[in-house]
Amino acid sequence: MRILGLDPGTATTGYGVIDTDGNRAKAVDHGAVYTSSEQPLPQRVLSLFEQISSIMDRWRPDAVAVEEVFFNRNVRSALAVGQARGTLLLAAAQRNIPVFSYTPLEVKMALTGQGRAPKEQVGFMVRALLRLPEIPRPDDAADALALAVCCWHKQPWDQKVRQARAGQVRSAPESRGGPASPAGVGETS
Amino acid sequence: MRILGLDPGTATTGYGVIDTDGNRAKAVDHGAVYTSSEQPLPQRVLSLFEQISSIMDRWRPDAVAVEEVFFNRNVRSALAVGQARGTLLLAAAQRNIPVFSYTPLEVKMALTGQGRAPKEQVGFMVRALLRLPEIPRPDDAADALALAVCCWHKQPWDQKVRQARAGQVRSAPESRGGPASPAGVGETS
Repeated sequence: MRILGLDPGTATTGYGVIDTDGNRAKAVDHGAVYTSSEQPLPQRVLSLFEQISSIMDRWRPDAVAVEEVFFNRNVRSALAVGQARGTLLLAAAQRNIPVFSYTPLEVKMALTGQGRAPKEQVGFMVRALLRLPEIPRPDDAADALALAVCCWHKQPWDQKVRQARAGQVRSAPESRGGPASPAGVGETS
Repeated sequence: MRILGLDPGTATTGYGVIDTDGNRAKAVDHGAVYTSSEQPLPQRVLSLFEQISSIMDRWRPDAVAVEEVFFNRNVRSALAVGQARGTLLLAAAQRNIPVFSYTPLEVKMALTGQGRAPKEQVGFMVRALLRLPEIPRPDDAADALALAVCCWHKQPWDQKVRQARAGQVRSAPESRGGPASPAGVGETS
């Protein structure tokens, strides 16, 4: 199974692709896509959409992992992240790829066993678990790979993917990915 | 010139289309598109995107007017609005339609002359200015028409549209639409 982790932002969106057979995982690709602050916002959103769509079409992931809302952020930042996040969700939905969300706490727990682990430790574990020669750069790419690894560790996600594709469970896509996951997150306005 | 006003939300997005010859305006269409809370968020974003894209393709507006960020909202709400707003900006950018943003204060000032006018007064003025038989429903549709009327009143917006299309000014699309408008709003994360 192939998982695409995405760390959304209008200026920089990190991405990381891993392949896993259940017991092992390897990094297939990672990096970040950028949009220029010289451009008007609608053109930046379009650029982000096209770049991420292209990555999805290139790697054809079985699942997408994104960060769950981080409520400590301020309102302006939440709106900006929301604009980028909506764009990524759209690109995934157009391709019928299930989306799973994880809080920063879940990601840190999955990778380090510590919910309050420093950022460097997450990067260190991403490098170790995926046997990379060094910690991925930029940070957004490391965070995206960490999301993908978290999704892999949250067994049995592969079963949930099959269920989500078959439309059997409401809670799978865009749910918080744990086995004891609650029903789908309702984010409305 | 034809203006499409949009009041974004994941659950309900209001829209309103007006035609203006500079001195007069008439309502062409208005209403709201809905997404079901029964669906996972990515499918809701996709549904919103498809419905709004269809409205843009049907009415082919010369400009899109959206609400500027409302910073009094809470973080969760800002993220949800951001996800919907990004989707609308993307649909506009794909069609090369310039987007103009207005704060709630600007909209109220443009319609009623009062920045603190109650919601009912805005609806009343939308009805009066567009000579509608009654105040548009739902509220989201009235708000969307108010945005379109605000965009119309903020002369000389038609000149700015031509400039934006020609790529001559950075500040026109997704700027706050007044004649003394500052440079483009940089919303990044």
